[in-house]
Amino acid sequence: MSFDVLQDKIRAAKNPTVAGLDPKPEYVPPHIRRACYDQYGETLEGAAEAIFRFNCGLMDALSGLVPAVKPQSAYYERLGWRGMEVLERTIRYAKEKGFYVIADVKRGDIGSTAQAYSDGWLGSVKVGEADLPVFDADCATVNGYMGSDAIQPFLEDCKARNKSIFVLVKTSNPSSRELQDLVAGDRVVYKVMGDLTQRLGKDTEGKYGFTAAGAVVGATYPSDLRDLRRRLEHTFFLVPGYGTQGGTAEDVRFAFDKYGRGAIINSSRGIMCAWQKTGRDGQDFQEAAQAAAIAMRDDIKQYVTIL
Amino acid sequence: MSFDVLQDKIRAAKNPTVAGLDPKPEYVPPHIRRACYDQYGETLEGAAEAIFRFNCGLMDALSGLVPAVKPQSAYYERLGWRGMEVLERTIRYAKEKGFYVIADVKRGDIGSTAQAYSDGWLGSVKVGEADLPVFDADCATVNGYMGSDAIQPFLEDCKARNKSIFVLVKTSNPSSRELQDLVAGDRVVYKVMGDLTQRLGKDTEGKYGFTAAGAVVGATYPSDLRDLRRRLEHTFFLVPGYGTQGGTAEDVRFAFDKYGRGAIINSSRGIMCAWQKTGRDGQDFQEAAQAAAIAMRDDIKQYVTIL
Repeated sequence: MSFDVLQDKIRAAKNPTVAGLDPKPEYVPPHIRRACYDQYGETLEGAAEAIFRFNCGLMDALSGLVPAVKPQSAYYERLGWRGMEVLERTIRYAKEKGFYVIADVKRGDIGSTAQAYSDGWLGSVKVGEADLPVFDADCATVNGYMGSDAIQPFLEDCKARNKSIFVLVKTSNPSSRELQDLVAGDRVVYKVMGDLTQRLGKDTEGKYGFTAAGAVVGATYPSDLRDLRRRLEHTFFLVPGYGTQGGTAEDVRFAFDKYGRGAIINSSRGIMCAWQKTGRDGQDFQEAAQAAAIAMRDDIKQYVTIL
Repeated sequence: MSFDVLQDKIRAAKNPTVAGLDPKPEYVPPHIRRACYDQYGETLEGAAEAIFRFNCGLMDALSGLVPAVKPQSAYYERLGWRGMEVLERTIRYAKEKGFYVIADVKRGDIGSTAQAYSDGWLGSVKVGEADLPVFDADCATVNGYMGSDAIQPFLEDCKARNKSIFVLVKTSNPSSRELQDLVAGDRVVYKVMGDLTQRLGKDTEGKYGFTAAGAVVGATYPSDLRDLRRRLEHTFFLVPGYGTQGGTAEDVRFAFDKYGRGAIINSSRGIMCAWQKTGRDGQDFQEAAQAAAIAMRDDIKQYVTIL
């Protein structure tokens, strides 16, 4: 299954991290923005093109070093169809460069609507006799508030196409507790979501024992992370919250199993914005991103050995 | 506030319903699909163009009769950027025709990412000195599993721009019970979500007493609908599940307050696919949609008088 592909890439790079591609405008170095506005004007097209050049530069710098990228749909959607066109190109470029691509879309809807989302992000679309891939990521994030109706259609595509999903279980943000930490009987809500995720993934275990239905579990609640790791032994974890949000390497070690497998740690700002700390106005964004990715990898490797 | 705008449109049309624009390929009459494939080939562009023509035909037929439309993002996203371009055009056309536009996107993310979604769907985007609207709907649906961090940024844009949102509270699908019906202390999870929604909307009440933070509450659980109506007197309801999913006019009457206000009932398939029941191969899709919309309106008006 698809998490085998990811785990193999992690082992090859000896690096259990994913670079978020969340291109807020202020993350894009000024010289790239300027060049694009000169060429396309101060338009959505200009802003989208700036994002694409920045993404490609980052991926060139991180290729071979970081095994996966995670574009965050919101930063493309906010530029309308121009942004979505650039997201399609970004995913295509990432796959050419050998990255495992996690589309961070957090979609959640039911039945045939969930199927439509899955068609677009993981599967393909029939038009007349043609069968056309669209965004075609390796993996997507899913919101399960509506229950298994929102998750199941994605899993069918995962099985058919060797892909995977991450369901939001316990997120890294402060207000995640408002819903996710409610105690229902003998289980907290996020554990109910975790159990549901593992149950729906049943019979899709790959060679490392993980199902196609992974879970998003934040680094900012390390004891929850440890509990969930023990509870969901067949569930691969995507872990946001390292770095800027306060999660440390010591915290995220709880996400891994005893073989150092089953988790990937995200950094977005830490890598994308590394250039803002060197005082060189972004001309060195590639070297800065590389250095930040190496520092993050080495930080985590103090606590985790990947077998 | 923005729900005043919607309630005024409902009162003017004497019709508390919204037409879902969920254009699955098989919903589009064959003659429209054929014309577009002939012109653009069996491509994503051809499929997107077919959707646009169908949407425009429906809106021409429903204008003045139905006060609002609700495009479901999944059916546009599955066609990639071509679909998103058509979604932009659909929203623009709908506003020109006087419809209140609810973008059914069910987005849910935190902080600056929620802000990015809100920029795109409700607000505008700064590019250099320019300030550009993007999808620019009147209202969007939001998933609050991540807590108030996922809702608050949208509400700020609602206040600034006289817009509104609907937060998923109790959805109409069978598996909604898996998470939403868990009992946490003295409250069911969906009531916690409802209370949170009403609390976050505080101080945005308009002339009819409703805040800018509405709630999605399905027609398929009428007793929950009645409880929530009593509990959340300042919350406008978007009610899916009427018709094909089994909700009846008798069920949905519980969504309204004593003045017959505070709710809008959705129908997607019932209106879009009405042509499939007339045996005329879709040539009459406009008349069929009109007749279905009138029948739905009159069905609900048996139980609800809008003051």
